[in-house]
Amino acid sequence: MMHINDIDTPSVLIDLDRVEANLKRAQDYADMHDLPLRPHVKTHKLPEMAQKQVALGAIGITCQKIGEATAMADGGLTDIFLPYNIIGTSKLDRLVDLHARVTLSVTADSTDTVAGYAARFGAAKPLNVLVECDTGAGRCGVQSPEETVELAQQINDAPGLTFGGLMTYPPRGNIAQADAWLHKAKAALESAGLPPKVISSGGTPDMYRAAEGTATTEYRPGTYIYSDRMQVAFGVGTLDDCALTVKATVVSRPNVNRAVIDSGSKALAADAVPAPYTGYGHLVEYPNAVIIALSEEHAVVDLSACVDKPLIGDTVRVIPNHACVVTNLFDMVYLVRGDTVEREAKITSRGNMR
Amino acid sequence: MMHINDIDTPSVLIDLDRVEANLKRAQDYADMHDLPLRPHVKTHKLPEMAQKQVALGAIGITCQKIGEATAMADGGLTDIFLPYNIIGTSKLDRLVDLHARVTLSVTADSTDTVAGYAARFGAAKPLNVLVECDTGAGRCGVQSPEETVELAQQINDAPGLTFGGLMTYPPRGNIAQADAWLHKAKAALESAGLPPKVISSGGTPDMYRAAEGTATTEYRPGTYIYSDRMQVAFGVGTLDDCALTVKATVVSRPNVNRAVIDSGSKALAADAVPAPYTGYGHLVEYPNAVIIALSEEHAVVDLSACVDKPLIGDTVRVIPNHACVVTNLFDMVYLVRGDTVEREAKITSRGNMR
Repeated sequence: MMHINDIDTPSVLIDLDRVEANLKRAQDYADMHDLPLRPHVKTHKLPEMAQKQVALGAIGITCQKIGEATAMADGGLTDIFLPYNIIGTSKLDRLVDLHARVTLSVTADSTDTVAGYAARFGAAKPLNVLVECDTGAGRCGVQSPEETVELAQQINDAPGLTFGGLMTYPPRGNIAQADAWLHKAKAALESAGLPPKVISSGGTPDMYRAAEGTATTEYRPGTYIYSDRMQVAFGVGTLDDCALTVKATVVSRPNVNRAVIDSGSKALAADAVPAPYTGYGHLVEYPNAVIIALSEEHAVVDLSACVDKPLIGDTVRVIPNHACVVTNLFDMVYLVRGDTVEREAKITSRGNMR
Repeated sequence: MMHINDIDTPSVLIDLDRVEANLKRAQDYADMHDLPLRPHVKTHKLPEMAQKQVALGAIGITCQKIGEATAMADGGLTDIFLPYNIIGTSKLDRLVDLHARVTLSVTADSTDTVAGYAARFGAAKPLNVLVECDTGAGRCGVQSPEETVELAQQINDAPGLTFGGLMTYPPRGNIAQADAWLHKAKAALESAGLPPKVISSGGTPDMYRAAEGTATTEYRPGTYIYSDRMQVAFGVGTLDDCALTVKATVVSRPNVNRAVIDSGSKALAADAVPAPYTGYGHLVEYPNAVIIALSEEHAVVDLSACVDKPLIGDTVRVIPNHACVVTNLFDMVYLVRGDTVEREAKITSRGNMR
């Protein structure tokens, strides 16, 4: 068995005990509140992790790109939701291929997107389309319950499409606002004779309050499987729940209060963390250290607040601000349990951004 | 011939005319000031681009990781400088292999790093080691000219090492400070009978003032080949010099002033840009648009200041804040000239972070 000490740096380590605890905690909450989970795989991009999620009770998975979904279909996943407006001939071709292989749902927030789907799918195996709603997050989505009815009608009128319901990525910390929006849209759809089969919400930050959204019928958490500093800052668990770490080596100790490690923005990513946290990651072995700057292959660490300080050649494990973007930077990860490496896993859909 | 309109999104396009103009401008400056260039390949990670740089007059290349250097050696590059402290058995093994293939120089800023090299290289083919100096940037590097002499002596005393000189990544906008530091160190080394053969400085932001550093004998620019919004903010050229763009599609127009494109932090990276610029990239076709937020696979664009606004399905080209980290996110790029795609190029050392 390989020991984690034998892993060269920088590398991504995934702690399987923490993964399993994180998944179980979420599934227990979902079961208790009778709220099915459809986890977003963007965080791990690993079919074997998606299989773990389904084995625990998830009703299917969520992918953000056709390439990600195709990698999951290749890995045996059979029920996939793509909460994305799929636009253009090339992507619609690939969507047709994917639809032939798995139970597939997609999203639309415009008549253009629906028209694109309607032109490519037929009554023999209709494509299930949910309407994306902007319930306050200011990303994609129709702007009013009235617009949901218009799009639902357009979908329902297309022989090759079925209206699957509503989907939103809600504003963080404001479940009530999203829920009021969704209830209004649901009522409007019911009045129009188009009751939504599914109302899908998501996001790890509010997942342990998800049941407060009484309109929601399924939930799409993503980051919860690994967690990260951003989630801890949002109040989701603690640093001890974080399953993804970047193993790094101290390559320089220029002065008494400065260390430089071999993981920069090309390993940790430059994503910021909400206050009161600062810096670009948490050093597990030196909790008072602060990563004050990243260059591409180096992180500069301020050790002023540390009593013990690392030496050149020492290794550390860094909990990144945002786990999902770190997954996307590495070709493979090490799956570990305690100090033992169980195996390596290749991130097949890394860089597969279409 | 493939037209750029036929490229699906998101994708990276490299404008070869701009690349060649950027390379020529830099080499002309270098030639005029008799300051040899040793370009950093981290920006492009493409052997064919490194070959262009050498063909124009570069005396060799700079790589940040052994993996990057190995990919360059595989691509026929023969003179490589690694301005990095190479630490640990596994990396030293690979360094020995690389050293057998190419003319190699490395860096050290500590006695530990030098001792590691000394134990692994022999007098038959000594390893050339430069001492890294912290001239004010606050990254790696020895803290005083006196320390450079100590390390130079340690290197000189090791049978398998040769003292190659000094290396620094200088503080941006402060060439005078770095130059004074390097002149002091040079004088101290000369007094000790260890004159530095090379004094290497770098960085694109100050490259057109590099000759003001009179101690400098070679210069390592990286980003200059592609440029990006960060360099434009630093005053290096204009947006019209930026050779790397991310082609993206408008996938949603939720309201009159908002567009959402299919390139998020997994395509553009979350690196910030210095004031007065804001946002996460510049839309070439909509110069008054502002990318106000990134999620992983979406960018939210504020169109308030735009008279013409894009429609769903329209494509745009985004100049990212930081080109080097975008290169690291994609498996391949399209090399284009005007509207014509000349060919694709695979980024072999992407994710090769060791």
